Amino acid sequence: MEIKTYIHKVQYYETDQMGVVHHSNYIRWFEEARIYYLEESNLNYENLEAEGIMSPVTAVECRYKSPAKFGQSVKIDTKLQNFNGITFSITYEVTDLKTGEIRAEGSSSHCFLGKGGKLISLKKENKKYYEMFSLLVN
Amino acid sequence: MEIKTYIHKVQYYETDQMGVVHHSNYIRWFEEARIYYLEESNLNYENLEAEGIMSPVTAVECRYKSPAKFGQSVKIDTKLQNFNGITFSITYEVTDLKTGEIRAEGSSSHCFLGKGGKLISLKKENKKYYEMFSLLVN
Amino acid sequence: MEIKTYIHKVQYYETDQMGVVHHSNYIRWFEEARIYYLEESNLNYENLEAEGIMSPVTAVECRYKSPAKFGQSVKIDTKLQNFNGITFSITYEVTDLKTGEIRAEGSSSHCFLGKGGKLISLKKENKKYYEMFSLLVN
Amino acid sequence: MEIKTYIHKVQYYETDQMGVVHHSNYIRWFEEARIYYLEESNLNYENLEAEGIMSPVTAVECRYKSPAKFGQSVKIDTKLQNFNGITFSITYEVTDLKTGEIRAEGSSSHCFLGKGGKLISLKKENKKYYEMFSLLVN
Repeated sequence: MEIKTYIHKVQYYETDQMGVVHHSNYIRWFEEARIYYLEESNLNYENLEAEGIMSPVTAVECRYKSPAKFGQSVKIDTKLQNFNGITFSITYEVTDLKTGEIRAEGSSSHCFLGKGGKLISLKKENKKYYEMFSLLVN
Repeated sequence: MEIKTYIHKVQYYETDQMGVVHHSNYIRWFEEARIYYLEESNLNYENLEAEGIMSPVTAVECRYKSPAKFGQSVKIDTKLQNFNGITFSITYEVTDLKTGEIRAEGSSSHCFLGKGGKLISLKKENKKYYEMFSLLVN
Repeated sequence: MEIKTYIHKVQYYETDQMGVVHHSNYIRWFEEARIYYLEESNLNYENLEAEGIMSPVTAVECRYKSPAKFGQSVKIDTKLQNFNGITFSITYEVTDLKTGEIRAEGSSSHCFLGKGGKLISLKKENKKYYEMFSLLVN
Repeated sequence: MEIKTYIHKVQYYETDQMGVVHHSNYIRWFEEARIYYLEESNLNYENLEAEGIMSPVTAVECRYKSPAKFGQSVKIDTKLQNFNGITFSITYEVTDLKTGEIRAEGSSSHCFLGKGGKLISLKKENKKYYEMFSLLVN
């Protein structure tokens, strides 16, 4: 089970009037980290979409532990889990880059859609990607 | 247990290249619906913040059922639950305004912070708001 | 020259740590007001896109006069100008709904793209829309 | 007149249903590049705000030349200009990192606010920062 680490620098426009990062941005950071994870595994999103495969989010959850602030960077440890050819999930741990303090933990669930937006089994429709995904969870 | 219904019109800038609303925006819609719910219950966020009370999100989750698209509007049924003076949660059901098709379901959890960002019990610190919140869950 | 008025309620997630609306959101409000303007003129964006016509932004500018805050609503007066079949521009005046204080003024410029993303003249490619746009500037 | 170069990787959530980056995000990229520029010049935003100085955007404009897409990165060349102690402006040139194709050009104008949100002259209120800003435009 490979873990990959993505670093995000907090942007000013990500803060809200509470003086901390608005909670919705963590969901976007999860996406950044997920796309990075797949890229680093040669499973680039652009390539998937070019082959007519989309992998939308079917569920997402995030538990907020401490607020990230402008001027800080976060480290997101990402792990692909529960891949079965039809669905998979990814877990995320967001920590402060400097202090290691946990900012948030969460996960996202995904399926695969083929052309026309139909649910597909990667095992049947795209052996190459099926094997690449399988490698990541073993 | 009072339910309030909020309507949101899908914006162009909320779509992504999949041709549907980007999943992170539902978390923002939950916030819109929550703020509306509290306003309609005379628990305006601005008033709370003016009294030095903040109510940050401690967790959020969303399950996506069907994609909302530009040109559509959604109806969000919002319900306050599990208020105990220290924490509460809110559930959201997002449906298409026209067809009633379910778009997403989710929830958010919250605590109360006083001046200086300390966790507070509303029961101890602000009887007025404690009673107003209590009314909503009975 | 018809003016249409759109109302936007400031959202919490639109604020930043300065305690006011982040300046980038005004560009999104311009889009909301523009789409509303076109809808009210029977020039719905969805219909345009369904006919294979897109109308991307070629330039945008905004001058900020006073900050909008959470809990307020703004009124955006929108006016279509300089339509010549190939390009047009829209001007926006954002004022506080209650006090009338000017928040921002700005404009956006647009062209028309046909299928394949080529620049088109609406006069040649789509007489119906050409005439509808023309009506708005006279 | 120093130029600094900032690199931004296009995010999936920055795209819209036209299949390209939504135009409002360039305004956010300008902010990223501006903050980077100031940091690299030892004029960190956090430090400025810690001294009670804010530097809000008074105007912004952007001309779009070609669309940036998901999977690409852009290079933003940033230059501080017209600093007079009371206001300054910054210009931005956004090009594709790989091909050098121009994506957009723009600028932002800024003033300085002190505690209480009053307009201030940096020359009078903060000699240290006045000199640091001056160095950048000579």
